Amino acid sequence: MNTIPKKRIAIDMDEVMADTLKARLIRYEKDYGVSVSKQEVHGKSMYQAIPEAHRQQVRDVLDELDFFRHLEVMPDAQKVIKELNEHYDIIVATAAMEVPFSFTAKYDWLLEHFPFLDSQKFVFCGNKSVVLADYLIDDNPHQLSHFTGESIMFSSPTNALENGFKRVNNWQEVAELFLT
Amino acid sequence: MNTIPKKRIAIDMDEVMADTLKARLIRYEKDYGVSVSKQEVHGKSMYQAIPEAHRQQVRDVLDELDFFRHLEVMPDAQKVIKELNEHYDIIVATAAMEVPFSFTAKYDWLLEHFPFLDSQKFVFCGNKSVVLADYLIDDNPHQLSHFTGESIMFSSPTNALENGFKRVNNWQEVAELFLT
Repeated sequence: MNTIPKKRIAIDMDEVMADTLKARLIRYEKDYGVSVSKQEVHGKSMYQAIPEAHRQQVRDVLDELDFFRHLEVMPDAQKVIKELNEHYDIIVATAAMEVPFSFTAKYDWLLEHFPFLDSQKFVFCGNKSVVLADYLIDDNPHQLSHFTGESIMFSSPTNALENGFKRVNNWQEVAELFLT
Repeated sequence: MNTIPKKRIAIDMDEVMADTLKARLIRYEKDYGVSVSKQEVHGKSMYQAIPEAHRQQVRDVLDELDFFRHLEVMPDAQKVIKELNEHYDIIVATAAMEVPFSFTAKYDWLLEHFPFLDSQKFVFCGNKSVVLADYLIDDNPHQLSHFTGESIMFSSPTNALENGFKRVNNWQEVAELFLT
């Protein structure tokens, strides 16, 4: 019996599966005593929303061995990805080469929160032009523009002003797009 | 001015860029006092060439944090890849998800021995069906059969009996194939 191969969806981690921005803002408040809300990074990077003198330390937090280990899972991500996984070939594609100290934390985080995914389908890369998939769900417009399949932008405050891609605002909208 | 995009070559690390088998055999002799030659793993895996009672420990060596950090570079690999890098889009694709404790060692090894490569083009994956490239140079017949581009088998003692792929025996033959 011939079966039609499942379509493959590549899913980004930071700002898509994991609420990395929330953790960065909490950490910023802890380090500097200043609260920056998600509204304040609307349409810009976190670095643009803080004083220049703080930027290097805010970047350095990403090189801590366990920063990516304790991120909150995005609302509904587990439920929807579990269901997607029954109908699609799911791979996780994360730009880990920008934060090479995070490799193990990212891997362990995936095993903990998405134990139903196949770790042989985890891809730690840099530029996502190397990823072969039918769809990429990502918050980063640069990655979405490099990808060769169909690019779908997952909304994040920082990408709020981008208009070049089909957009989903949350995991419920991903479910509506792929599962209905 | 329009330029023709460079063809992309994905290159495996273990047994292709790095002499992983040599390091494993040296370590085996150190741990068990028994010398196993490369000839003795002709056409089989290392596990098939040693007593069953030793196999788990031989596998566990791969989970040591620094095992992959000190591998010898394959003869001519640096010279040929440096030249390939001028004419092709080179990515490194390694099945690191099988040995997740090795992420940092593999990354540092690449930076040390191949500093001219773009780390944004390093891909730590599992199954290489996710890699988008025109060519894959790999020693592993399973990976070569999953890959969707043109598969090229890099000879290793363990794959000596495989006949299903175009074969290169060393980096000089890679140079002849791609640079002449």
